[in-house]
Amino acid sequence: MTAPQNPLLNDRDVEFLLYEVLDAPRLCELPHFADHARETFDLYLKSCRRFARDVLFPTYKPVDESPPRFEGGAIKVHPALKQVFRPMVELGVLAATRPAAVGGQQLPLVVATLAGAYLMAANLSACSYLGLTTGAAHLIETFGDDALKAAFMTRMYAGEWTGTMALTEPQAGSSLADVQTRAARTEAGHYLVRGSKIFISGGDHDLTENIVHLTLARIEGAPPGIKGVSLFAVPKRRPERGTEGGQLVPNDVEVAGMIHKIGWRGLPSLSMSFGERGDCHGYLVGSPHQGIAYMFQMMNEARIMVGVNAAATASAAYHEALGYALVRPQGRRLGSRDPAAPQVPIIEHADVRRMLLRQKAIVEGSLALLATTALFADLAAHAADAEERARAQRLLDLLTPVAKTFPAEKGFESNALAVQVHGGYGYSSEYLPEAWLRDQKLNSIHEGTTGIQGLDLLGRKVVAEGGAALRALGGEIQRTLGRAQRAGVEPAWGERLGAAASLLDEVTAHLAEAGARGDVDRMLRHSADYMELASTVVIAWQWLEMAAAAREGLARGSSPAGFLEGKLCAAQYWFSTELPRVDALAALCRSGEDSYARIEPAWF
Amino acid sequence: MTAPQNPLLNDRDVEFLLYEVLDAPRLCELPHFADHARETFDLYLKSCRRFARDVLFPTYKPVDESPPRFEGGAIKVHPALKQVFRPMVELGVLAATRPAAVGGQQLPLVVATLAGAYLMAANLSACSYLGLTTGAAHLIETFGDDALKAAFMTRMYAGEWTGTMALTEPQAGSSLADVQTRAARTEAGHYLVRGSKIFISGGDHDLTENIVHLTLARIEGAPPGIKGVSLFAVPKRRPERGTEGGQLVPNDVEVAGMIHKIGWRGLPSLSMSFGERGDCHGYLVGSPHQGIAYMFQMMNEARIMVGVNAAATASAAYHEALGYALVRPQGRRLGSRDPAAPQVPIIEHADVRRMLLRQKAIVEGSLALLATTALFADLAAHAADAEERARAQRLLDLLTPVAKTFPAEKGFESNALAVQVHGGYGYSSEYLPEAWLRDQKLNSIHEGTTGIQGLDLLGRKVVAEGGAALRALGGEIQRTLGRAQRAGVEPAWGERLGAAASLLDEVTAHLAEAGARGDVDRMLRHSADYMELASTVVIAWQWLEMAAAAREGLARGSSPAGFLEGKLCAAQYWFSTELPRVDALAALCRSGEDSYARIEPAWF
Repeated sequence: MTAPQNPLLNDRDVEFLLYEVLDAPRLCELPHFADHARETFDLYLKSCRRFARDVLFPTYKPVDESPPRFEGGAIKVHPALKQVFRPMVELGVLAATRPAAVGGQQLPLVVATLAGAYLMAANLSACSYLGLTTGAAHLIETFGDDALKAAFMTRMYAGEWTGTMALTEPQAGSSLADVQTRAARTEAGHYLVRGSKIFISGGDHDLTENIVHLTLARIEGAPPGIKGVSLFAVPKRRPERGTEGGQLVPNDVEVAGMIHKIGWRGLPSLSMSFGERGDCHGYLVGSPHQGIAYMFQMMNEARIMVGVNAAATASAAYHEALGYALVRPQGRRLGSRDPAAPQVPIIEHADVRRMLLRQKAIVEGSLALLATTALFADLAAHAADAEERARAQRLLDLLTPVAKTFPAEKGFESNALAVQVHGGYGYSSEYLPEAWLRDQKLNSIHEGTTGIQGLDLLGRKVVAEGGAALRALGGEIQRTLGRAQRAGVEPAWGERLGAAASLLDEVTAHLAEAGARGDVDRMLRHSADYMELASTVVIAWQWLEMAAAAREGLARGSSPAGFLEGKLCAAQYWFSTELPRVDALAALCRSGEDSYARIEPAWF
Repeated sequence: MTAPQNPLLNDRDVEFLLYEVLDAPRLCELPHFADHARETFDLYLKSCRRFARDVLFPTYKPVDESPPRFEGGAIKVHPALKQVFRPMVELGVLAATRPAAVGGQQLPLVVATLAGAYLMAANLSACSYLGLTTGAAHLIETFGDDALKAAFMTRMYAGEWTGTMALTEPQAGSSLADVQTRAARTEAGHYLVRGSKIFISGGDHDLTENIVHLTLARIEGAPPGIKGVSLFAVPKRRPERGTEGGQLVPNDVEVAGMIHKIGWRGLPSLSMSFGERGDCHGYLVGSPHQGIAYMFQMMNEARIMVGVNAAATASAAYHEALGYALVRPQGRRLGSRDPAAPQVPIIEHADVRRMLLRQKAIVEGSLALLATTALFADLAAHAADAEERARAQRLLDLLTPVAKTFPAEKGFESNALAVQVHGGYGYSSEYLPEAWLRDQKLNSIHEGTTGIQGLDLLGRKVVAEGGAALRALGGEIQRTLGRAQRAGVEPAWGERLGAAASLLDEVTAHLAEAGARGDVDRMLRHSADYMELASTVVIAWQWLEMAAAAREGLARGSSPAGFLEGKLCAAQYWFSTELPRVDALAALCRSGEDSYARIEPAWF
């Protein structure tokens, strides 16, 4: 018996999230989405899903096995990537959510997110060229002038050129205040850029004729720290003035080296030199010294995208493990004393089912959180009134670090469980789960490490505007509690979620007080534990919402009922196994426990 | 600034465990160890440690990068392995703990375990050839007749030939009841073996002229299930009768294929065919149909060794991360508002210190548990009176699944944290942590998966002899509580450990009652959670014992005091962060929560 084809994501789950949990079509009542309806959503989902399964997924293993080559100063990617790049562009992925005015489909992000998750689950690194391009083009769309838009953005949204984020430098790492790349203004208006960047994903390739690096640099004489960092568009080849149509000439952007990554093996990560020959032209995006603020648009989008990467990677592995467990015979049920009885599929063993249900709870909980977060992004940008937009923006800001971190951290655990379900075969590169495990590990590192997300959540997001975002989350949780009660969900779950949300509020107030006293170290010492506490509550909220929608579906007689029963099992798992952990986490955060604060480096 | 050389293990910690926590030299009062003293322990430790650092560790990365090749029906290993194999044999590793009568050094296992941990941390797969050989030779030593000992055991302990465990078959996996390899007795006394095995570690190589496979097979007409499985020594080449000195001729043992493992890349994992040409001679070890019982000797030794593998792999990565964090500058302290101030080493950031202290708590807690377990093995075999031996045997049996599983599962988390501390560089194969992360993943799979260890602990070990082993553990914990109190350790820690141990007893009684009622499914449903509960308590016991020894050292004015202060910080971490989790785990085990028991395969 062979395992069924890996679906990457469960179609029924995607439908459930969009139409039964979230009611995404209500967005179509807003002017911005007026041309859309469930039918157009489904059309886009269907084309992405089909492409992901039939075209993209078969390229995953060959691309993982043969990473890009660095030859003659340039990067050559796997031939399979060249075959899928243009058809993927033609799906309309690049500008799916962008307005029609710039060539986009003006789809809600919530739809694009779930459709994109299929593509990511099929081949993460292949998708990343497009995700990076959209983010970079969107920066120019928002902050660039018309000349920049005409020169770069249009070609990027069309997939003729790609884009990158060029932030990190070898000596600075995550510390953007220490960016040292320089930009000197010329009389012609452009800047001459000089400096070194590292970990530039997609920084070179042979998929398109040009690449636009959205680059952080300091204008000569700028103030130190993050207040002196500006944003530039720095193309690999620049349009030569005076030539017809602006012929492209090399722009003194060179690949200095390629990092041998353990995953995402289709996407090169490069160290790069800008302006070694003094001839690297950069074009200022927006105003000087606003680079960090601008870049946060791309970083926030990228953080949500990392969450989707993570959920998709965990989803692909979960479905692989599920398919394997359904067909792999081994051993007998507990208590069976007949060695001549046939072996049972391993899904019959309680601990294998535990590992699968844990993966389901993590994967589907992550996808629900990401869909919810994306919906808030849609409302933050396009809701009818300003107050609703502000409220959605607060929720988006609050949930972004959680939606980035939970899928990355618990997704890694989930991916390890997919390996474990495969037993010894899982430890072999002839099976796929180990590759997804490698892919997953990056998600806790790039676009702000888990440590940085914890500081962002506790040090900024929950305390901004006097805690307005957490109050807005409390309102959402109340709404969910009401829905669950009306739907007839197990009352104990709602009670536990209500109590956990109150606990989160209390812990937050306690820690914010330490911050207000000026004891920032004390406030932020347990930011990792706080992140885990907040994530556990937020995912419980998602599972209660899904449980409510499942109960509603069962009451309506939706079919197949088994899918909805499975949702209730996963919700039960989360409420029984994970949510009870909040008490110990909350106590730890409040205690200010100081073991790692007071240990001295020499004591390790 | 460059990081200091990786010490693999902390020498001070090894000394602390042997001489301050455990008082290993008291073993020398027993007749079996009468020729030993602290000086001979230290000599052996020193030679292993020096070899590990100077000779073995430099081979790790080259061997990881170039796995064995399968050419012309045979396996060729990395040349570096050939250079280190003989010197490693000459350290006396193979028979370190075996009696002088068989050429051994008669060292206590507790000493050999810690010395071996240096070698494993330096190059896990290189050591494994020796570990497997010792285990296989020990089976023949215990159960084989004199002819088998003369033919095989002597050469194996001398490192002339190596040994393997040939248990797993493709259709059976972990289910040894389903072994189908056949053995037919010949008139000459040997058996003709025929069958297929898979995942045979070190099943072929070009390090020695011969390999002896300790093989499970069914004698024709044997009963079905585990009661019909016998143990055979099946050499790759057999000594030909009648030739002078028994010239070696091929024994119809063939490599059928090599599995591409993601770690342990120096040690081939093979699928093998025995007797395809009908000419594979096997020699029965002991009595017919006792194979599983015999093999458990090797499996139990191997399980402890897997725990040491895991702790060593986590230790190497922890020390690498610590070295990196001490020298890598990035960012500034929280609250620093001067962007012109120099960057600080990342160990100054609270969350990095948290990740390092968590690794320390896992690594050193694991090593302490393994040393303690090994000491019980020494006492079980060699203590002066029968009652003491029986008591030690119970503790050894009880702790074996925990000592295998905790280092493997939490070690994987610890290894992932070592990657995380390295940030983007950790995601690159130019740095070592990712390789150790890959190595570590096998430890939750081989020699009985984590799921199987949980069933062993809860279904067998804690309920055997009416719970005698758990009572013995309770006695040990009481002894530790007394020592901690006398030493002046923070009283709250002792109280919490005492309460947690009582909780473990209560949960065990509750679950055993379900088993006694015949509801085995209910009893074992949460065996994974029970394992986590038991592990958390057991490691807290180890940390309290270490805290007591640290306090005693501080009172004596031991130096450096920093090391002892660091022990207290790690103990504090465990008691504040991990031990409080037992309440939720205990509640979960008792509740019989049935989400994954009742979910049907089609509901996922």
